[in-house]
Amino acid sequence: MTAYTRTSRAADALREIRITPDFLPHADGSVLIECGNTKVICTASIDENVPPFLRGKGQGWVTAEYGMLPASTASRMRREAAAGKQSGRTQEIQRLIGRSLRAVVDLESLGERQILIDCDVIQADGGTRTASITGAFVALQMAVDKLLAADMLLHNPVREAVAAVSAGVVGGVPLLDLDYPEDSGCESDVNMVMTASGKIIEIQGTAEGAPFSMEELGELVRLGQKGVAELVQHQQQALASAAAASEQ
Amino acid sequence: MTAYTRTSRAADALREIRITPDFLPHADGSVLIECGNTKVICTASIDENVPPFLRGKGQGWVTAEYGMLPASTASRMRREAAAGKQSGRTQEIQRLIGRSLRAVVDLESLGERQILIDCDVIQADGGTRTASITGAFVALQMAVDKLLAADMLLHNPVREAVAAVSAGVVGGVPLLDLDYPEDSGCESDVNMVMTASGKIIEIQGTAEGAPFSMEELGELVRLGQKGVAELVQHQQQALASAAAASEQ
Amino acid sequence: MTAYTRTSRAADALREIRITPDFLPHADGSVLIECGNTKVICTASIDENVPPFLRGKGQGWVTAEYGMLPASTASRMRREAAAGKQSGRTQEIQRLIGRSLRAVVDLESLGERQILIDCDVIQADGGTRTASITGAFVALQMAVDKLLAADMLLHNPVREAVAAVSAGVVGGVPLLDLDYPEDSGCESDVNMVMTASGKIIEIQGTAEGAPFSMEELGELVRLGQKGVAELVQHQQQALASAAAASEQ
Amino acid sequence: MTAYTRTSRAADALREIRITPDFLPHADGSVLIECGNTKVICTASIDENVPPFLRGKGQGWVTAEYGMLPASTASRMRREAAAGKQSGRTQEIQRLIGRSLRAVVDLESLGERQILIDCDVIQADGGTRTASITGAFVALQMAVDKLLAADMLLHNPVREAVAAVSAGVVGGVPLLDLDYPEDSGCESDVNMVMTASGKIIEIQGTAEGAPFSMEELGELVRLGQKGVAELVQHQQQALASAAAASEQ
Amino acid sequence: MTAYTRTSRAADALREIRITPDFLPHADGSVLIECGNTKVICTASIDENVPPFLRGKGQGWVTAEYGMLPASTASRMRREAAAGKQSGRTQEIQRLIGRSLRAVVDLESLGERQILIDCDVIQADGGTRTASITGAFVALQMAVDKLLAADMLLHNPVREAVAAVSAGVVGGVPLLDLDYPEDSGCESDVNMVMTASGKIIEIQGTAEGAPFSMEELGELVRLGQKGVAELVQHQQQALASAAAASEQ
Amino acid sequence: MTAYTRTSRAADALREIRITPDFLPHADGSVLIECGNTKVICTASIDENVPPFLRGKGQGWVTAEYGMLPASTASRMRREAAAGKQSGRTQEIQRLIGRSLRAVVDLESLGERQILIDCDVIQADGGTRTASITGAFVALQMAVDKLLAADMLLHNPVREAVAAVSAGVVGGVPLLDLDYPEDSGCESDVNMVMTASGKIIEIQGTAEGAPFSMEELGELVRLGQKGVAELVQHQQQALASAAAASEQ
Repeated sequence: MTAYTRTSRAADALREIRITPDFLPHADGSVLIECGNTKVICTASIDENVPPFLRGKGQGWVTAEYGMLPASTASRMRREAAAGKQSGRTQEIQRLIGRSLRAVVDLESLGERQILIDCDVIQADGGTRTASITGAFVALQMAVDKLLAADMLLHNPVREAVAAVSAGVVGGVPLLDLDYPEDSGCESDVNMVMTASGKIIEIQGTAEGAPFSMEELGELVRLGQKGVAELVQHQQQALASAAAASEQ
Repeated sequence: MTAYTRTSRAADALREIRITPDFLPHADGSVLIECGNTKVICTASIDENVPPFLRGKGQGWVTAEYGMLPASTASRMRREAAAGKQSGRTQEIQRLIGRSLRAVVDLESLGERQILIDCDVIQADGGTRTASITGAFVALQMAVDKLLAADMLLHNPVREAVAAVSAGVVGGVPLLDLDYPEDSGCESDVNMVMTASGKIIEIQGTAEGAPFSMEELGELVRLGQKGVAELVQHQQQALASAAAASEQ
Repeated sequence: MTAYTRTSRAADALREIRITPDFLPHADGSVLIECGNTKVICTASIDENVPPFLRGKGQGWVTAEYGMLPASTASRMRREAAAGKQSGRTQEIQRLIGRSLRAVVDLESLGERQILIDCDVIQADGGTRTASITGAFVALQMAVDKLLAADMLLHNPVREAVAAVSAGVVGGVPLLDLDYPEDSGCESDVNMVMTASGKIIEIQGTAEGAPFSMEELGELVRLGQKGVAELVQHQQQALASAAAASEQ
Repeated sequence: MTAYTRTSRAADALREIRITPDFLPHADGSVLIECGNTKVICTASIDENVPPFLRGKGQGWVTAEYGMLPASTASRMRREAAAGKQSGRTQEIQRLIGRSLRAVVDLESLGERQILIDCDVIQADGGTRTASITGAFVALQMAVDKLLAADMLLHNPVREAVAAVSAGVVGGVPLLDLDYPEDSGCESDVNMVMTASGKIIEIQGTAEGAPFSMEELGELVRLGQKGVAELVQHQQQALASAAAASEQ
Repeated sequence: MTAYTRTSRAADALREIRITPDFLPHADGSVLIECGNTKVICTASIDENVPPFLRGKGQGWVTAEYGMLPASTASRMRREAAAGKQSGRTQEIQRLIGRSLRAVVDLESLGERQILIDCDVIQADGGTRTASITGAFVALQMAVDKLLAADMLLHNPVREAVAAVSAGVVGGVPLLDLDYPEDSGCESDVNMVMTASGKIIEIQGTAEGAPFSMEELGELVRLGQKGVAELVQHQQQALASAAAASEQ
Repeated sequence: MTAYTRTSRAADALREIRITPDFLPHADGSVLIECGNTKVICTASIDENVPPFLRGKGQGWVTAEYGMLPASTASRMRREAAAGKQSGRTQEIQRLIGRSLRAVVDLESLGERQILIDCDVIQADGGTRTASITGAFVALQMAVDKLLAADMLLHNPVREAVAAVSAGVVGGVPLLDLDYPEDSGCESDVNMVMTASGKIIEIQGTAEGAPFSMEELGELVRLGQKGVAELVQHQQQALASAAAASEQ
């Protein structure tokens, strides 16, 4: 293992972030989120029914599905619809997205309705699950804003923003927001889902190369907090621009 | 049934067509094709293996898969990967795309390799299967050009361009290139896949409302020929612009 | 490509047609249809429920399923039930059969009930989808006649007969009703579903070998019209014989 | 439970048996077997490959698949290919057919090839599994005779004939060869697969109503032996007639 | 075939039987049954709903599922949940277990509730299906006793005990309760499900090597009756010990 | 939320741990691990083949499957084999087990063979995934010891022990090793997979109730380190006892 020097940006810098709201106008909320070369379409669709296990319980639900276009990766992936099932990885990621969003939504205030999130990766260069969460929050908030504007909701059930980012140790150096080559070669990798106020909703750390210490974990979490704070600002700008557009 | 007057464009006019090449750079060929509000990502991926039934036969293969993002339609569709199978409609369309492209490719000249086409609809407003074929041809030709440039092919195995369009009778009026509201209300609907030289590769006509006569069929085919001729020009421009970009 | 001369019958002749009504007495309507060596059992089963998407809409439904016995083809096919799914071809054909029959039935007059068509090929020699449609219409009409006889329907909801046939160009010669060897070697192939009055319900043309012109299409459609007119006569005879048998 | 008197035939009589050889000429062996109103198409297809677990073991294999047309039963059954899987009952039956046939074939003499049996019920009135076995044996022997005639086999690997029949107690009376109404109302039901020499290959007895004694079992087995002896004669006649036809 | 002498126990002796009640306390009834080295966990779970086909019919239901741990067999088996379906053998066995238990339960007295039996083999050494039935009866009776103790049932709906055992001919010698090596080498094999009163509920005999006669069948059934009588005593002891424990 | 006081054991105490080696003698390594009322059978099976993606790469593989008996939980779970697929949760857990074990194995030293781990929960009371990892390591080491004893491996490819435990905040109190009632009511929950030397292999923290801070995460990790150190001692004792048994 040789020491790694990231040349394109600082060790604690995010890739270039771009969030384009209203990317798919058929959905109730939608964005294209680009984190460097990772590009994900995130949409939110309001369904005035809840899943069977919640009927009559006086609360709503938020759930998510995740997919990748076959040509989103460097070598073409098999299409899951053709294979006839979603991979374990896909299911893991979509469960994570749903859990992360539900953690910031007051499901009782949402009322007996469901918001379905779809995250479809059109280009993958590392960090698709964290980009999905960051983008999905914006789509979710746009759908909620639509319900508020239509007086179908009286209060915003979203407690605070949530965003996600990775950090990892590559060649002995802790780095924020790994791209695919960095992620493939890292010693350890932590995905963090955090709130705007800097608290942890979900943390998943894996020793890809060598087991890591509590100190290393601490350092990666601090990088993550810095990254999430910046992502939350991008989210707010996208929501402000979406609100401005819808008022016209 | 009341007579229908199309106000946005002439009865024999295509919707606005835009073909953006190199939309997904991981693929060997790719475009975003927009036909009005219908938007499809088409990619071509070269695989240096052929499917089992062709091994050792000295010829290549072209095949296609088709999908729609759940939020591409006005009310969200179920995700086929989650449902665990592709619908009959999806299979019908992807078989049509594959057949249409193979009809203009000399599979022996292609050599023992396969070109896999993916057509993923990100926004649907009628005519997704015809837009897929028109876009897929460009992606296919780009992948072939890459093989030619790399001296992996000595001759272009593509005999001529292929494009597709619909025409239908709405409110008694024959119209070219139906959008979704027109398609939903039409009496009859013909999808045509044709060559640059105006010959028919595939024609599929359906009486949605009332059976139609041979004369009506003839009129719709003439509209289709006009539309395909224009689409082929859009394809050539996109290919020229892709070639210019790759030479830089 | 050498010119082809059909020796067994005229270029514009159907194969020998035999329609045996009441072939499977458990069904509400049934026939064995034989078109040369192609043999299909077609049945119609009345179900006094409609599918979920039509409940309470005040209309009925007609739908179809298609299958082939594994030993119906020259080399044994895999059994779809064992494979765990229906092929794309099977789904395409059963969707076509259902659409073709619905085009001649007034679904509101049918009332909130469903007629389920099953077409099972026991021997295949080309043209199984068109034979299925021709035979299925007879089974459907028999089931409707049973509802009329039982006063469960007051008016016949069937507007007119529907039948189907193929035509294609083989060795440069346009031929009606291709058998399997002709179908395998043809340049182009058109399946036509038409009404007793000679109008088109569904037309599907494919360039198997070379793209074809509008003129060739016209010639094949004229052959199809001749064939369908004869098939409708066979249907009427079978229905008359079934009616005579049920009155005894 | 009231005593039952069978009026149509004697308590120890088979239903009317008809075995039509060469029913599906594409197969290597085929019959239509009719046992009263139960009708099954049985075919045998030779495959010059063995399944993977037998490759290079110097022996052959015989296996079977079973299916029912949806309209074969009094109320339409769901099509297994559409349901996406074979029922437990179907799998049980096809495993039984395969086991029964393998019991009379010397698999080493068969050589490294496989004979695939298909039993497709076109009309069901009780006893479809036993009719399938009885008919399948004839189809199997026809396929073997074809291999012998082509000098692909030097010796007949079939040791003796096998046939199957049911017997059961209905209203206290032991009866041979139950039809569907008898089978539905019986107290106990035994399916027997036996050789031409009267030995047991497979016996499956079930107390549908009340547990039964060893004496009752003995009585049912004796009925079964009588039935199988008669069925073997029908098989021999069918084989003789098939042989005569193939010599012409 | 050489004559076989069983050295570990008499030809008409069962393997060592141990039935441990309350093995999985979450279930309403449970045992670990050990028949020599074959070990099966059998549980009964009460469900106060009946399956759809019995709703409102005023009767209950008993059904069973069967599985094997992948490492229960000498060489690891594929996990059925990972394979995505239960094998034909599994389905056959679980249908047999359910049928056997229903034969001794008065389903009307059980009321509109269902008892779900699970039989999970943790170690396999022959006779897993018969051990499952013998153990499942004890679990079922424990669940029923719980309903009786809670006054949810007024009368015991179980008519009498049921147990199961195999017998087979190995090297010409009839043996009771075959272990795996004996079962693999036997000429014929009969599984018997019988009541405490010695009557037959289900009998399944298979000629693994050579067809067998009615006399051999009789001898095997007599061995089975002896075995079942002993198994019923083990069941009664386990139930007595479970009752004693629950009274404390 | 009221403060919670754990009465049965100290806040930083594990539940009672019992590891019984050689529980399923058919496997190459096996244990029953009991953590309080959570009981898991863990087995390791050696396969002298590697999965296709590793063929010829000169390295081995360790992979895992996880399942729960339907009656392992307080209310019966659906059997995954009957449902036809493994849930997302199951796939997540078995991927975690496999990753955790591979992190301590030098796959090149293992040689071109695979060790398949099966973790089957027979009783569930919280912490089934962590118990599975802790038990699976013992089974894996037993299988490796068997390879070493047979001279099929020259060096131990296992770098160090790995074990796993959960910790969480319940009613404001950080607790080690949550049982099911604690896990259901906790505010946050961290699963930790660590090495004998106290380093982190995998950490998964989820805010079930409220987002948590870096300080809380640190406290939970310290509890986890204490728990894992004790678990590693239990593993060593079990391995010592297994080694003693195999030497006899």
